[in-house]
Amino acid sequence: MSELNPSKVESEARRDSSGEALPIETAPSTNGHQLAADLHLREVVQGQRPGERYVRIVRPQLGRLRRVEPGHLVATERTLEGRSLTSRAWNRIRYALFGPPLSTAALPHERLSKIKALAVFASDALSSSAYATEEILLVLVAAGSLALQWTVPIAVAIAALLGIVAVSYRQTIRAYPQGGGSYIVTKDNLGTIPSLVAGASLLTDYVLTVAVSISAGVAAVTSAVPTLHDHRVLLAVVFIAVIMAINLRGVRESGTVFAAPTYLFLFAILAMLVAGGVRLLIGGPPPAEINAVPIEGGQALTIFLILRAFASGCAALTGTEAISDGVPAFKPPEWRNARTTLTWMAVILGVLFLGITGLAYSFHIVPAEGETVVSQVARMVFGTTPLYYYVQMATMLILVMAANTSFADFPRLSYFLARDRFLPHQFQFRGDRLAFSTGIVVLAVLASVLVVAFHAETHALIPLYAIGVFVSFTLSQASMVRRWWVRREPGWRRSMVVNGLGAVTTGIVAVVVAVTKFQLGAWIILVLIPLLICLFIGINRHYQSVRDQLTLERFNQPLTPPHSPYVVVPVDDLHRGTLQALSYARSISPSVVAVSVTDDMEAAARLRRRWDRWGGEVPLVILESPYRSLIGPLLSYLDGLQAEHGGDPITVVLPEFVPHHWWEFLLHNQSALRIKAALFTRPNTVVIDVPFHLR
Amino acid sequence: MSELNPSKVESEARRDSSGEALPIETAPSTNGHQLAADLHLREVVQGQRPGERYVRIVRPQLGRLRRVEPGHLVATERTLEGRSLTSRAWNRIRYALFGPPLSTAALPHERLSKIKALAVFASDALSSSAYATEEILLVLVAAGSLALQWTVPIAVAIAALLGIVAVSYRQTIRAYPQGGGSYIVTKDNLGTIPSLVAGASLLTDYVLTVAVSISAGVAAVTSAVPTLHDHRVLLAVVFIAVIMAINLRGVRESGTVFAAPTYLFLFAILAMLVAGGVRLLIGGPPPAEINAVPIEGGQALTIFLILRAFASGCAALTGTEAISDGVPAFKPPEWRNARTTLTWMAVILGVLFLGITGLAYSFHIVPAEGETVVSQVARMVFGTTPLYYYVQMATMLILVMAANTSFADFPRLSYFLARDRFLPHQFQFRGDRLAFSTGIVVLAVLASVLVVAFHAETHALIPLYAIGVFVSFTLSQASMVRRWWVRREPGWRRSMVVNGLGAVTTGIVAVVVAVTKFQLGAWIILVLIPLLICLFIGINRHYQSVRDQLTLERFNQPLTPPHSPYVVVPVDDLHRGTLQALSYARSISPSVVAVSVTDDMEAAARLRRRWDRWGGEVPLVILESPYRSLIGPLLSYLDGLQAEHGGDPITVVLPEFVPHHWWEFLLHNQSALRIKAALFTRPNTVVIDVPFHLR
Repeated sequence: MSELNPSKVESEARRDSSGEALPIETAPSTNGHQLAADLHLREVVQGQRPGERYVRIVRPQLGRLRRVEPGHLVATERTLEGRSLTSRAWNRIRYALFGPPLSTAALPHERLSKIKALAVFASDALSSSAYATEEILLVLVAAGSLALQWTVPIAVAIAALLGIVAVSYRQTIRAYPQGGGSYIVTKDNLGTIPSLVAGASLLTDYVLTVAVSISAGVAAVTSAVPTLHDHRVLLAVVFIAVIMAINLRGVRESGTVFAAPTYLFLFAILAMLVAGGVRLLIGGPPPAEINAVPIEGGQALTIFLILRAFASGCAALTGTEAISDGVPAFKPPEWRNARTTLTWMAVILGVLFLGITGLAYSFHIVPAEGETVVSQVARMVFGTTPLYYYVQMATMLILVMAANTSFADFPRLSYFLARDRFLPHQFQFRGDRLAFSTGIVVLAVLASVLVVAFHAETHALIPLYAIGVFVSFTLSQASMVRRWWVRREPGWRRSMVVNGLGAVTTGIVAVVVAVTKFQLGAWIILVLIPLLICLFIGINRHYQSVRDQLTLERFNQPLTPPHSPYVVVPVDDLHRGTLQALSYARSISPSVVAVSVTDDMEAAARLRRRWDRWGGEVPLVILESPYRSLIGPLLSYLDGLQAEHGGDPITVVLPEFVPHHWWEFLLHNQSALRIKAALFTRPNTVVIDVPFHLR
Repeated sequence: MSELNPSKVESEARRDSSGEALPIETAPSTNGHQLAADLHLREVVQGQRPGERYVRIVRPQLGRLRRVEPGHLVATERTLEGRSLTSRAWNRIRYALFGPPLSTAALPHERLSKIKALAVFASDALSSSAYATEEILLVLVAAGSLALQWTVPIAVAIAALLGIVAVSYRQTIRAYPQGGGSYIVTKDNLGTIPSLVAGASLLTDYVLTVAVSISAGVAAVTSAVPTLHDHRVLLAVVFIAVIMAINLRGVRESGTVFAAPTYLFLFAILAMLVAGGVRLLIGGPPPAEINAVPIEGGQALTIFLILRAFASGCAALTGTEAISDGVPAFKPPEWRNARTTLTWMAVILGVLFLGITGLAYSFHIVPAEGETVVSQVARMVFGTTPLYYYVQMATMLILVMAANTSFADFPRLSYFLARDRFLPHQFQFRGDRLAFSTGIVVLAVLASVLVVAFHAETHALIPLYAIGVFVSFTLSQASMVRRWWVRREPGWRRSMVVNGLGAVTTGIVAVVVAVTKFQLGAWIILVLIPLLICLFIGINRHYQSVRDQLTLERFNQPLTPPHSPYVVVPVDDLHRGTLQALSYARSISPSVVAVSVTDDMEAAARLRRRWDRWGGEVPLVILESPYRSLIGPLLSYLDGLQAEHGGDPITVVLPEFVPHHWWEFLLHNQSALRIKAALFTRPNTVVIDVPFHLR
């Protein structure tokens, strides 16, 4: 190559279907060989006249890569093929479970229609209507059946709260079409620490949503099939795993899968409300024989109790923020579709919740051991008919599926936090199917831990729930207030009032929830959120410190002038493996020394004799180790060498066996592995593995 | 340095207490800097005349190393000091448990006197007298109490067998002063496969010895303290762990620890025999009220039954070969001390066994549920006095301590097998305390597994026992016969007859044991031994194949002429870490290319712009990965590059973060780790870690 006169070099595209002539991309050559960096085969061709030679650019058999332009290659799907039997088998299993990998280019098409988005984002919110009424009744009944007259006023207050929150969030979605979760909105308007409070609150609540919903769903299943009761923890974990797998398949498909249960539930409850309403209109309230006897309450009907009933009923609002978090998952125009879906959801939820509560009150229903309030209402409306079983089945399904909302939101929020360096990088990566795999798996693991720790008992988990949501509601809307105030866009006054009302209301509710449920478990969350914030800040500090350390101060600084490294080659004996390593060491530097650490001085003398006979120009140092230690003496030797060379970096070349079968690892003493581990933390040390492949 | 006129260079030893002048050991230098391989500081000194300069050799602050002669350094004890807080703490714990490391030079002093050797090597053999009599009686009593008249003849036959084996082994010890275990003797005279049979048999039996002895010892303890019965498996594992720890401390100290129980037991039984004999002589047999009623046997007194009784009693001989295996552990002259100890041991064992059996027979004792035969004898001789408890306590102790014999022999035999490449290298290494740590730990683990699997029940383990011993006896003595026949040294005829008699007798016994105990569990061993032999051969083949692949055919072949490698540097961005890696890459080769695998083409375009502005002479290839995979595209790129360069090796330089705290690992995506794992098995690929240490 070096014989070629550069001026005679001519580029010619041969065997290139596009026919374009491409320049040669080569590394600067100083000793006679060149590196064709972007894989262009060059061919030396005899020219017309004697002595005249050309280089022809040949588009090579790139195989699994495609060349777009100079210095830009694209990997084809074939690069993903496994290179060993096990990796091929693993790929096959993975593709069967989660589907084949999707290209990043497929991303914009993975969007949700409003119908599907309602199913994906609303299942959590809607499913809470299955237990919110019961939560209110459970608190009130402690003060006797007379206290139940407070049920409807409380439900109306909660529905009004829902309305306020929904209207408030409609404004947020419009203002943040790129995704306006509390974290982002708060960060944008109130700063970092408040946004971390919102983030920590929401992450906690997402994990709780999965644990609570799955536990409630499993409880429904095991009530139907009592033999499964002993296995409910296992069952819950299996449910979580199944939902995780479906989510790892990607967002559109999970929309498809989850659409059915949401709508089944919706129609089941609507049918029940209509039938119940008709019944009330025609026949008046049915004879309330079940609860005819007035119940004596053990507690006085204090304002605190009424507030606690209200706080418990507020569980109905969990999940309302889901849509504003997930705006980018909607089909374009994202913000408009998201806002419409939010309105639908709030209206539906309000109808379901008020309807169930109204019927329950009209039928004089109180919570009973072993039967839910919804089940009692359904039984009273339909009798024990197939329609009743349909309601129960749909309720079970949506409770299990509600967890899916969190599986859409938790990974997305983790992504935002990771992008801002408050969570590890890994949460930013999209998996084979474009889902944020890390977030999905982490959520599944955390929820499973909770389920196992609380034995899949819903009652134990409920008091921890809903605080996080109201904290984030408050922060989100307070942020919007500040935003209107600062920007003063047209209509800012009206908008500020709407969001201000939302902020004040949800703020009061957050305090009420925290105070009334504090002793029952809410304190755990109030401790956890600050801890999470500390974790976020710690992670952020670390990344920031790494960034600072990596910053190039003088940007145009050239590479330090090449200076061959000092190379040490630990050897056990003189054989092909050693020679290969020594040969490599000599190819990168003239300053090479071989070191043999041994306690067997006879073997050392033999090695010295063979070394001298071999005469390979590399000096051998025998490092006698009377305590049979390998690492300590070697490190001390490197210290000495480094001290002698004024602290210059040391390079260690390790001859390493690569066995043909994994179990053959056991038969080699892994000295190389131990040396590598010891050198990893040693400053100023470069380690080179020269593998020797065994047949 | 390059300015120095080599002819003016003068060596001078300064600050060198010995005052010797030492030559400079340097690597051949081609580009102006030198590597002082054995850590000699050189100093440039101004000579008398202007322009005249010298190099002075300065004995450097070697720190933890000592220089003996050119190219020979010795590590001091200080090289063992930990370099991090955790490694220092770990060292402290280890030294507290096992003692500080011993130099290899300390090895010859770690020898046993005859008194201690008897304790170490004979505890197994002597302890078997605690149950051998009972084993005989247990079989015979099945045919009724009349059959018990065979007890004494069988015991005499076993004692005679012991005599034959002992005399036979005396000859072996004399012939193999370097350690004449069955494995070595058989290999020397009968070849590889028979020696592997002996090795496999013995290894199996050593593990069983530990499991049986510990289980029996624990059973004795738990009989005394019944509340411990539920924890006997745990107790057994703890005992094994304690014996393991004591053995890891080194052989002399274990001798000290174990001397006491052996002698306690010896004197206990001797006292019992003397007292019992005196009692028999003076008063005649005591009224055998306990077993006055003749027992009806369920089985006929067949020859098979008598043979099975004999086979069961042969458990008395287990451990007899221990001394011949361990000759090198004796104080010099090793073989003579070992032979004397063997004779003592055989005589003592014979006396104990015959004495116990004789007393048991004279007192008409038969095995009873819940009380051992030795206990019955002791109670009859001493009554339930402190002397009785002393006998029981000593029996318990020696049963637990008998396991120690195996902890001396198993590692030694593993060492021999590893030296001959039938077991992994690791079995050859001496630990900090000069003990063969790997063998000790492996034995402890295997025995613990057995103990757990058999719930520490002695009766379940006993049928597996003793076959291995007799197989190895036979092979060892057959080998000696062949040795005498081939060598015909003075007195060979007599010696050959002695060993021949031994071989034939123990061979017959091996067959008898295998046949009579086959159904009870001996078959497990008869299956296991061939499997072990296959394992040995497989390991040996692997090592042999590695050896063949490493052999240098043309010994004097020079290193292949230096040829700078093709270097690929995967980069994520342009920062200090990347620059450091690129700088290193350029220092070892002129052919360097940076590759950025990404799916974010905006970021790629930004990187390209910064790269061009930087102008660092290294070409950048953007490798677009639409499926977000890192490894597959990178491997495909390396394939393409390698194909282009005719299969030349590729070097990959990996910039790698070294975090300050271990948990910071979680915050970096470990791309480097994943690339390393993928490249490990790729042929023709050298991997270089360029660490970037984070503060």
